[in-house]
Amino acid sequence: MGNLQSLLPYAPAIGAISLLFAVYLAGKVSKADPGTETMVKISGYIADGAMSFLRKQYTAIAVFVVVVFLVLGLLLPANSWQTAICFLVGALSSAAAGFFGMKVATKANVRTTQAARSSQNAALGIAFSGGAVMGMCVTGLGLLGLGILYMIFREPTIVNGFAMGGSSIALFGRVGGGIYTKAADVGADLVGKVEAGLPEDDPRNPATIADNVGDNVGDVAGMGSDLFESYVGSIVSAMTLGVLALGFDGILLPLIIAATGILASIIGTFFVRTDEDSNPLKALNLGTTVANVLFLVAAFFAVRVITPGQPGLFWAILGGMIAGTLIGFITQYYTAAEYKPTQGIAKAATTGPATVIIEGLGVGMFSTFIPVILICAAIILAFVTGGLYGIALAAVGMLATTGMVVAVDAYGPIADNAGGIAEMTPELPESVRETTDKLDAVGNTTAAIGKGFAIGSAALTALALMAAYAQVAGIKSIDILNPWVIVGLLIGGMLPFFFCAMTMGAVGRAAGKMVEEVRRQFREIKGLLDGTATADYVRCVEISTSAAIREMIAPGLLAIIAPILVGFGFSLVDAGAEALGGMLAGSIVSGVCLAIMLANSGGAWDNAKKHIEEGNYGGKNSPAHAAAVEGDTVGDPCKDTAGPSLNILLKLMSIVSLVFVAPFL
Amino acid sequence: MGNLQSLLPYAPAIGAISLLFAVYLAGKVSKADPGTETMVKISGYIADGAMSFLRKQYTAIAVFVVVVFLVLGLLLPANSWQTAICFLVGALSSAAAGFFGMKVATKANVRTTQAARSSQNAALGIAFSGGAVMGMCVTGLGLLGLGILYMIFREPTIVNGFAMGGSSIALFGRVGGGIYTKAADVGADLVGKVEAGLPEDDPRNPATIADNVGDNVGDVAGMGSDLFESYVGSIVSAMTLGVLALGFDGILLPLIIAATGILASIIGTFFVRTDEDSNPLKALNLGTTVANVLFLVAAFFAVRVITPGQPGLFWAILGGMIAGTLIGFITQYYTAAEYKPTQGIAKAATTGPATVIIEGLGVGMFSTFIPVILICAAIILAFVTGGLYGIALAAVGMLATTGMVVAVDAYGPIADNAGGIAEMTPELPESVRETTDKLDAVGNTTAAIGKGFAIGSAALTALALMAAYAQVAGIKSIDILNPWVIVGLLIGGMLPFFFCAMTMGAVGRAAGKMVEEVRRQFREIKGLLDGTATADYVRCVEISTSAAIREMIAPGLLAIIAPILVGFGFSLVDAGAEALGGMLAGSIVSGVCLAIMLANSGGAWDNAKKHIEEGNYGGKNSPAHAAAVEGDTVGDPCKDTAGPSLNILLKLMSIVSLVFVAPFL
Repeated sequence: MGNLQSLLPYAPAIGAISLLFAVYLAGKVSKADPGTETMVKISGYIADGAMSFLRKQYTAIAVFVVVVFLVLGLLLPANSWQTAICFLVGALSSAAAGFFGMKVATKANVRTTQAARSSQNAALGIAFSGGAVMGMCVTGLGLLGLGILYMIFREPTIVNGFAMGGSSIALFGRVGGGIYTKAADVGADLVGKVEAGLPEDDPRNPATIADNVGDNVGDVAGMGSDLFESYVGSIVSAMTLGVLALGFDGILLPLIIAATGILASIIGTFFVRTDEDSNPLKALNLGTTVANVLFLVAAFFAVRVITPGQPGLFWAILGGMIAGTLIGFITQYYTAAEYKPTQGIAKAATTGPATVIIEGLGVGMFSTFIPVILICAAIILAFVTGGLYGIALAAVGMLATTGMVVAVDAYGPIADNAGGIAEMTPELPESVRETTDKLDAVGNTTAAIGKGFAIGSAALTALALMAAYAQVAGIKSIDILNPWVIVGLLIGGMLPFFFCAMTMGAVGRAAGKMVEEVRRQFREIKGLLDGTATADYVRCVEISTSAAIREMIAPGLLAIIAPILVGFGFSLVDAGAEALGGMLAGSIVSGVCLAIMLANSGGAWDNAKKHIEEGNYGGKNSPAHAAAVEGDTVGDPCKDTAGPSLNILLKLMSIVSLVFVAPFL
Repeated sequence: MGNLQSLLPYAPAIGAISLLFAVYLAGKVSKADPGTETMVKISGYIADGAMSFLRKQYTAIAVFVVVVFLVLGLLLPANSWQTAICFLVGALSSAAAGFFGMKVATKANVRTTQAARSSQNAALGIAFSGGAVMGMCVTGLGLLGLGILYMIFREPTIVNGFAMGGSSIALFGRVGGGIYTKAADVGADLVGKVEAGLPEDDPRNPATIADNVGDNVGDVAGMGSDLFESYVGSIVSAMTLGVLALGFDGILLPLIIAATGILASIIGTFFVRTDEDSNPLKALNLGTTVANVLFLVAAFFAVRVITPGQPGLFWAILGGMIAGTLIGFITQYYTAAEYKPTQGIAKAATTGPATVIIEGLGVGMFSTFIPVILICAAIILAFVTGGLYGIALAAVGMLATTGMVVAVDAYGPIADNAGGIAEMTPELPESVRETTDKLDAVGNTTAAIGKGFAIGSAALTALALMAAYAQVAGIKSIDILNPWVIVGLLIGGMLPFFFCAMTMGAVGRAAGKMVEEVRRQFREIKGLLDGTATADYVRCVEISTSAAIREMIAPGLLAIIAPILVGFGFSLVDAGAEALGGMLAGSIVSGVCLAIMLANSGGAWDNAKKHIEEGNYGGKNSPAHAAAVEGDTVGDPCKDTAGPSLNILLKLMSIVSLVFVAPFL
């Protein structure tokens, strides 16, 4: 199999190509015209706020990373320092992806506004290129790191540390970013929009810059770190299970599959172009379709070459990809204003906030059905064609074109920011805001799709990691009839609820502080509402920053401590491995549905409000609109903080169990 | 062991004593003075509405029962007609308990109002006796049926049919009753209270009688059938597991334990008495404590006599009882206005409905932690001392004093009704309503405790039934690493969400019809709002009745069809038994937390509103109050329809698997 060994370096090499492409795109964005002085000033506020948040966040996380590095190095029974080094590299890679991705995103926003002055296609090009930098950084750093570390250590269980490092950053990135963005959003909405009657993104609203910063730290950096975790987690779980099933070939396959996905994504980006009259969504969909089709063709041949004895593995990969795509579309059905569920919520708004909430919760709960069936179908197809290894490969297949997915997803907040900057720049003509609004509307759709995809991939990745954990811990079976497993299942099933309560509470507390500050500024800064004085944006940014960093710690630690506590606690009665396996399964079982429900209820409430704003049921400022605004406000922490954070919880608990707990059991 | 055989008849005999005591109490209630002509007329409306609902509901269920009876008899591979007969007897017993319990409850309400004219103790006596009839019918019919059927057939797997019969009635009782009560409540509140500005229970509100009927069909009959199912389910699962562990002794023990629980409950009822100045809650607590202590003493000796080789089984029983009691108190902490969680929601009402909802969802999710830990602790204690059989015995221990639990719980809606009748009877002095309000306030506390208890007992019962299912299906292990089990787990975890979406949607549709009808009556019946014309109460009762019966069918069928579909569907790939086991476990894992969350969020919203009505944060008709009313309205279907219906879903799916699917696998 010497000829297959020679394929191995292609994985990190293509990871490097992904990064080079990111550099190329970043250059393209940087070279674009940033527009007028006002625009540069406003976007400077946003960029400064975003980077200062990231700096403070990373400083806080650094302490945690160093502690875990030492714990792994000093305590692990085998390969301790090698694993610790992989952990460190993983953490740095994830952080670097977040840093570069957001740096470029905060440049792309204002340049998108400026480009919108000439054409929709130019604006789309900048916004999408900005998002693609994040996408290419995620896949590039992920595959480069995995490839090189495997080439050095030649042992998947060591390389798992890389995934744990990425996961740790993802946890704080998603949770902290989620708290930040919603504290700012709720503060800006409740006082600025509702109490003071200002429009969205009005420069007189002191929280408006923090709100725009939040789009970047939550929806760009947060989503990026979430998918970095899924991407890396799915590959390492496939490597861990693959070496047992097929030896080296089983390790090579997921790496090469991921590499083909990167190339397909790069080619796909060139198909994202539009003209003045077309819907930009078409361009994004074309790019995605090209990437997916190219990837499938390449994956078909990769399977034939690397594992010729197991051609069926292709079906596992195909099933994962199709399930991920369909879950995205289903999410869109349940959350877009064009379809019945969201329209039903809008109609319920005519009888007040309570019926909006009841209807929205119902839509969210109902929407769990099809995604779960799709995940189950992917699992069955994958298992039948490739055993547990097949399930991990399905996750790899689902995530192979992550570069494209993140690009499309991160495009949304950039377009949203571009609209905000247009609104805050009085000298720009109306037509600019119209163009950015068109781009932003598409962003809402892609965000919904991205959220569904993130949940589906988190579920499959967490399952694959759980299977890898069981292999490493040497458990033959995790029997539900064993009461320790039952107890693990019940505790695991409860943790997502408890975790959500923590993150929702965090948003509430942080938003409360923001509400007070915005009220204070309206009260104390004379001339603010007439536009003769400037708001103290920086103070609002600081409040969101410090609240988010303080509040991310407790839920973050829960995700790390829970598996350690259960694993080592129950090992006192010699049932640690089984109870922990049960806990991981339980958390996936309830966590996936809770995440889907929160994401889709939230998305549907948001779009029901927009549907009314478009003139239905009385339009803006009608009683129905007021009721729908309440629904949207409830949905904000559900869909942008608690729901997405659950993805991380599930994956991180699995990876901590795999890397840190399993070696002791 | 001939001397132990001679103990067996005591079980049905004490069941019969329970029924005789119910007859005695019913006589006591009937003999009491029903009050003035107006009072008799109003209570007549309520009684007629409740009994007409029950008649129509039972007629609809009868079709279903006959079909299942024939299916069981014709299709089961072994003991088919014997099992079918047990099923029929179980269905009839559950229906009879509901019928008699509600018959007396609808007599007790008006007599409680009348007794409140003389003293609080007299009123408490009538209301509690009314509730105790339901309690004693549930335990009496349950144990009598189980005891006699076992003495006839001598085979636990046949007697399991009795539990399935009870479960089927419970399903439709809980779901139908829950839909009925909330459709009426929401209709009465949204139009009568909010739009027309009428106070609670105002006779000019056309939906007010339906609302009072709803308290009976939902909170008396619904809760009674729920606990009948848990009571019988826990005993049959212990019998099924016990015969394998200990032979006949293992069957006798749960029956005798249940019998001692009945005697302890009967004695406990005599301690429920109060004076003018005391809090009636003290009296109810004293009665409960006496019953629990007596039961534990008796259970201690019962274990020593029946299973002298296994004295540790007592600890399983004790652990179950303590866990059930503590879960009740924890529920009270999270939902009562005296404590921080509910006060936090009331405070959040000052910033509008959205923050009320967010805070309430957070409280509900947070409140899952301790109950799950308590259930786990009970499982561990039970398993260590008695294996899987111990877990079933823990459920039996938790439910042994069900007679007392139901009595305390059903007392609440009777006191609530009594207050409604006082409000609608203009000739009664203010002091009567004051007394009934005092009784009703306690009813809210006992309802919260009862709900927590119902969930905890449902969880433990469902787990015990799942273990019994695995035994009967002959499965050695249900391995989470088996992908068919994973798929089962995921589907099972999703079903509670889907089921809740169905029941919440049903309430929404039914409430919508009620809203239209109440609006129509205000519009078309001249003089209704001045009090010169009478509302058409009957029409509203009919709307709730027909909507509830129509809407209960789909969620009801889901609970029965899901295990059949998964069990037989996956048996095509020879994995039916394992996938179904996974599904049952998955539904318990996510269902328990979802049920706790819905119940506690709902309860806390309700009491946060009451806290504001007592003068906090601006009191009645303040903006905070309006926000809290929205929260309460959202909570209504959560806590009284979707949440409690989940208990049934979990148990019924397990019992269907045990009785109908396992024999084929």
